[in-house]
Amino acid sequence: MNRIVNDPNYVVEDMLKGFVKNHKDLVEKTENDRVLKYKKAPVEGKVGIVTGGGSGHKPAFIGYIGENLCDAVAVGEIFSSPTAKAFLDAIKAADSGKGVACLYGNYAGDNMNVKMAVRKAKKLGIEVKTVVANDDCASAPKDELEKRRGVAGEVLMWKVGGAKAAMGADLDEVIAAAQKAIDYTRSVGIGTAPCTIPAVGHPNFQIEDGMMEVGIGHHGEPGINVQPLKTAREIADEMLDLILPDLPFEAGDEVVVLLSGLGATPVMEQYIVYDRVEEVLEEKGISVYRSYVGNYFTSLEMMGVTLTVMKLDEELKECMDLPVNSAGLKQF
Amino acid sequence: MNRIVNDPNYVVEDMLKGFVKNHKDLVEKTENDRVLKYKKAPVEGKVGIVTGGGSGHKPAFIGYIGENLCDAVAVGEIFSSPTAKAFLDAIKAADSGKGVACLYGNYAGDNMNVKMAVRKAKKLGIEVKTVVANDDCASAPKDELEKRRGVAGEVLMWKVGGAKAAMGADLDEVIAAAQKAIDYTRSVGIGTAPCTIPAVGHPNFQIEDGMMEVGIGHHGEPGINVQPLKTAREIADEMLDLILPDLPFEAGDEVVVLLSGLGATPVMEQYIVYDRVEEVLEEKGISVYRSYVGNYFTSLEMMGVTLTVMKLDEELKECMDLPVNSAGLKQF
Repeated sequence: MNRIVNDPNYVVEDMLKGFVKNHKDLVEKTENDRVLKYKKAPVEGKVGIVTGGGSGHKPAFIGYIGENLCDAVAVGEIFSSPTAKAFLDAIKAADSGKGVACLYGNYAGDNMNVKMAVRKAKKLGIEVKTVVANDDCASAPKDELEKRRGVAGEVLMWKVGGAKAAMGADLDEVIAAAQKAIDYTRSVGIGTAPCTIPAVGHPNFQIEDGMMEVGIGHHGEPGINVQPLKTAREIADEMLDLILPDLPFEAGDEVVVLLSGLGATPVMEQYIVYDRVEEVLEEKGISVYRSYVGNYFTSLEMMGVTLTVMKLDEELKECMDLPVNSAGLKQF
Repeated sequence: MNRIVNDPNYVVEDMLKGFVKNHKDLVEKTENDRVLKYKKAPVEGKVGIVTGGGSGHKPAFIGYIGENLCDAVAVGEIFSSPTAKAFLDAIKAADSGKGVACLYGNYAGDNMNVKMAVRKAKKLGIEVKTVVANDDCASAPKDELEKRRGVAGEVLMWKVGGAKAAMGADLDEVIAAAQKAIDYTRSVGIGTAPCTIPAVGHPNFQIEDGMMEVGIGHHGEPGINVQPLKTAREIADEMLDLILPDLPFEAGDEVVVLLSGLGATPVMEQYIVYDRVEEVLEEKGISVYRSYVGNYFTSLEMMGVTLTVMKLDEELKECMDLPVNSAGLKQF
């Protein structure tokens, strides 16, 4: 282990303290020490945007708290769901009376805890509707969309939902836009080295040196195959071969591309992959309206990249164009 | 090797192509394929800001091209200086007739090539003045400041110089502000795992698992000691013990803190270190005016962090407050 922590059992607590100190212009603690909120939340007259998930994915999830983005976030242990209580308290922190959109990823623990939180919120008179991200097209076949996991496409779902709410839409309109965002989005991940949870002290899955796992999940969930490491161009091609036919994306489409590192893969290499991604898309007549390359959704010090492509219509474009100010995403 | 590249000998070329594609709103190629420039450069009536250095430090150096920041950057091979020609062409790309401030780090190759470029620029009628960053206080004793290396403090030097130029200062004023920025800045690095240059294929220095090297340079230059890995709190204390007496920073000072990961250390851990850094500073009566935590100046997939502290006066505060828009630093 070569990791910089205090007590490995308290990395989340310690991280939250430093995060709030560093981002005090944007983020505040709440009474629940596993819930952070946007400094101005609840924003009067605006639908609240809530998300949450396990820790270890910086800047997700708390890094997406901010202006025109998420209002409150429930924080789980490393790679495990926040409690129902944390989701409920995040919902309460985000609600200004206009209802709350809870936009989260498709994992068993999150599903269970969000459901409980929504039920309790209803008893308190807070209307909550949900969108469950399932953009990882390698995690289940196309006829089992409900089994697919949510990965980096969640960032685009938050961006769209957050923008829609900021533009004054009501809860149903926010939910419809966020649902469309994720319905129009496909992602896939490639892993080239595993990660270690500090409290565990050794990798809880393996990727042999010189190998890559295609379709790997954000917590090391098994992919669709393991093969010798290919070049950046071949990796880009292979990821697009999985993503493009799945929606499908077609000539004439305009898209947003989000290429995220998984943690330890240098951003330099992410640009190398992106070069080929844009080249292939343009060859196919698919034009890149906006792109993001960097560590937007990571898994500790795992190596590899995820590729996310979202098809756009006018509403989604308008949402993607709205400025945002958060730790993880700043856009003028 | 678990790295995502095409030909390991052409990672810089491939990276530049992807970088320009992804940041086409901010950055443009020039006739010299090792020089990138701000899209609006040369900015009429403004002193040009130029930097340059070896690759592998993303987002440095090209990530700091942008509005109110750097106008042009010379790009070297991994961990090696750009050519004199690249520095000269960056100077030409940045010059609007008001002169150019070349703000770079204290490394033998950069010093030699910048000197040659400045001489050639003079022959072309372009006035260039330089500031050489030497913020790494672990790299030489205090009475040999001229031997100290430039590290992540360069980001603050560019921020200050870029802001001063954007505010309409003349070349001498820009140089004076950037020189003050670096004179008031101290940095130190801690390494916990080495990095591998793709074309080499194995680490060109070693940090044993479970050990840390205090004072290590951005290219693995030897530090001041190697010791068993400490906790985040102890690491923060040890870095501050080197930084604070060196300037010295004193009670009543206001500072900017920049805590950067070296590449593969999760941002989560950087927040854990930052929590203690701010705590100690506040205990000592030193108040944090602004802080930055994240991967601002890296060394491929090296693990560890660098801590940079800059003492402020009114002029430096005003420069730090100016908004910037670049790939590596966005500030509203």
